[in-house]
Amino acid sequence: MAHLLHIDSSIRGEHSVSRRLTARAVAAWCAAHPGGTVTYRDLGREPLPHLDEAGGLARMVPAEQHTPEQRASWALSERLVNEVKRADVVLLGLPLYNYGPPSSVKTWVDHLIAPGIAYDPGTGAGLLGNREFVVVASRGGGYGAGTPREGWDHAGTWLPHGLSMTGLEPRFITAELTLAPTVPAMAELIPLHEASLATAEREIDELWSPVSAAA
Amino acid sequence: MAHLLHIDSSIRGEHSVSRRLTARAVAAWCAAHPGGTVTYRDLGREPLPHLDEAGGLARMVPAEQHTPEQRASWALSERLVNEVKRADVVLLGLPLYNYGPPSSVKTWVDHLIAPGIAYDPGTGAGLLGNREFVVVASRGGGYGAGTPREGWDHAGTWLPHGLSMTGLEPRFITAELTLAPTVPAMAELIPLHEASLATAEREIDELWSPVSAAA
Repeated sequence: MAHLLHIDSSIRGEHSVSRRLTARAVAAWCAAHPGGTVTYRDLGREPLPHLDEAGGLARMVPAEQHTPEQRASWALSERLVNEVKRADVVLLGLPLYNYGPPSSVKTWVDHLIAPGIAYDPGTGAGLLGNREFVVVASRGGGYGAGTPREGWDHAGTWLPHGLSMTGLEPRFITAELTLAPTVPAMAELIPLHEASLATAEREIDELWSPVSAAA
Repeated sequence: MAHLLHIDSSIRGEHSVSRRLTARAVAAWCAAHPGGTVTYRDLGREPLPHLDEAGGLARMVPAEQHTPEQRASWALSERLVNEVKRADVVLLGLPLYNYGPPSSVKTWVDHLIAPGIAYDPGTGAGLLGNREFVVVASRGGGYGAGTPREGWDHAGTWLPHGLSMTGLEPRFITAELTLAPTVPAMAELIPLHEASLATAEREIDELWSPVSAAA
């Protein structure tokens, strides 16, 4: 049975562009996978606790020697890793806040990088690869080549490195200049935003082929 | 009265290189500023709550219309901004976890970027500039020019951008290859680590001139 893990991380609720786009992707995936199932995790509304000293130590101590705090942190890592392992497709909504990922996404990655379950510490092989990983990124400004903020999107550059040990390889679909419709000083950028959004929507619609009713 | 804000963020406790180096910097600062005072914040042991929907909205709604959740988030931003404003020198220990900053540091920055108190939303001027901001960075591997992991330190590249609105401009002192003494496969890198550490220590010792007893 096909299974999708859908993760949102925006803190902008109904105003979020990334949430609207991941919802579109989920609808497209469901249309293409009748009977498929979806797990949803909302890092924006229910963020995970920061990885702390107990969690860090839990990675270096055999499970049978874990303190209660280490056991709790490791159990969370196992839950997050198993969510990924159960999924054929992982879909992550990734807004850009202060030129970086939401702290909740960094926390998710920190918990995910767990030896023995997300990667083999002996060989270095990633244990979460061989599945689709679609990242729907949104950013309020423009970060393209030649713009004044080129190189300031540190969420998009970091994520492939942050997850590299697991074998998860993100494919990015990005909508940018999302603040143009609401920030008066960006009004002249509205057409560029609309073009960026339309491209992202088309890329989402083309991700999975819908099942033909006549098949 | 001279005042230092000292912030640690490592989750490695007594094994932390960044904690050892910020402690060295605090001692050097105190020696150079007799009677100076220090405020300490430990993001590693007492992380801040992730900036959430209430916190995001608190930035767009007049204070007198805040809900209790928005008021609490805004009060935290005010406290963190005021800590910086009271300090002549801000000292931050910044380890590299999974090729990015600790999530607790991203959270600190997200709370700090508050309109009206950390930057002027009308002019865009930063309101936290004109103070020294020393970042003592530590990273387990090597990230220098020409190394296989060049460009993978997304904490050091992100931080100046993440704080740019405030006027805070970090000066970095970096110790790298900190895992060399404990990871057998990195044993041959121990001399490079020791050289990097010695350079960082010298840079710290030269930050502030100690007061001469004979002055």
